[in-house]
Amino acid sequence: MTKHLQVDLDELSKELLTMGAMVEEATNRAINALIRRDRTIANEVIAVDDAINDHENKIEDHALKILALHQPVAADLRFIITVLKVNNDLERIGDHAVAIAERAVVLSRLDPVALPEDFDKLVITVQRMLRDSLTALIERDADMARGVCKMDDEVDRVHRLMYSAMQDVMRNDVNFIEPAVNTISATRHLERIADLATNIGEDVVFMVEGEILRHNY
Amino acid sequence: MTKHLQVDLDELSKELLTMGAMVEEATNRAINALIRRDRTIANEVIAVDDAINDHENKIEDHALKILALHQPVAADLRFIITVLKVNNDLERIGDHAVAIAERAVVLSRLDPVALPEDFDKLVITVQRMLRDSLTALIERDADMARGVCKMDDEVDRVHRLMYSAMQDVMRNDVNFIEPAVNTISATRHLERIADLATNIGEDVVFMVEGEILRHNY
Repeated sequence: MTKHLQVDLDELSKELLTMGAMVEEATNRAINALIRRDRTIANEVIAVDDAINDHENKIEDHALKILALHQPVAADLRFIITVLKVNNDLERIGDHAVAIAERAVVLSRLDPVALPEDFDKLVITVQRMLRDSLTALIERDADMARGVCKMDDEVDRVHRLMYSAMQDVMRNDVNFIEPAVNTISATRHLERIADLATNIGEDVVFMVEGEILRHNY
Repeated sequence: MTKHLQVDLDELSKELLTMGAMVEEATNRAINALIRRDRTIANEVIAVDDAINDHENKIEDHALKILALHQPVAADLRFIITVLKVNNDLERIGDHAVAIAERAVVLSRLDPVALPEDFDKLVITVQRMLRDSLTALIERDADMARGVCKMDDEVDRVHRLMYSAMQDVMRNDVNFIEPAVNTISATRHLERIADLATNIGEDVVFMVEGEILRHNY
């Protein structure tokens, strides 16, 4: 590998980590806004989305320039392809964080819905999956990445449970239809973040081991 | 470009078109299953998902091999990157088609919900966006691809309208909570398919013009 390519790859790596940190913070803040019914935090998450989108475009542009300029092969090529995919997944996670923040704004104005105990588990699992997928990426840790994929089942379980719990809430009192529908929506966005963290986990395994892991979980 | 690279790219192109056709058919059938309350069609859509996932893995594998073997540059490189992205988007559309089919199975057992008139518009627009995005890809037509991106606003409008219409349905009769919640869910998957068709449209513009179009719509 030429020295110049290495410098470019290091820079690309740093840019992706910045993107990961931005998106992780947005997600955690959106969850806080939702739980604390805090419109101020929610609006901050919504405001930061443009910066995340700009950063995604910058990384994509940079990765394509490196591909065109250096025509890297083998592990370097896999790394750049992984950056392109993870970058895209992170931007989508950012979109879901904004969607959660938007639900948080609506919910903060409505009567609070009683959430099932397992909701906390869902939140903790999603946050852990996102954090671990980014750590696995930084440390090129395929085992940790596989662990992220396995946590997705727990998220799916609680997601299904939330659906039926919110339907019960609505049946018991029609005044809770609006908050329950918005809560289902927020939960669904959490579930999608877990899916995307799983994608990142799969991409990390591919990068480290050159194996396409998709659809095996 | 070497002759060998051209042969490989042509083959990759054909594989992606097959993937597009599979996913488009799954989507149209899932929509039919939803509208006609037809469990048989819905189950066929669910059954075909494995084949779609296998095809995605095959295309990704092939694209990465071409990258490693030929180290293509400029337009050829952009084409392969586009194939990787569109391939991923198509697989996600396939997942949403399955999700719609699953909702169709549930809904077929429940009392039918009265849908707002605009629901037909949503369905027609989503189907047109998907078809046009694939045609734009085949014909490398950046103008048609831009047209797809513009249609997404109409989808978002009807999607929002569906949310409030279904909340009214639930408020008027608690017996309709379950069908209304499942209808919201199906509508949301349609909206996500429109988003992914928009992504494909953006990727086609990038391929044809080498321009990153993301987040400008």
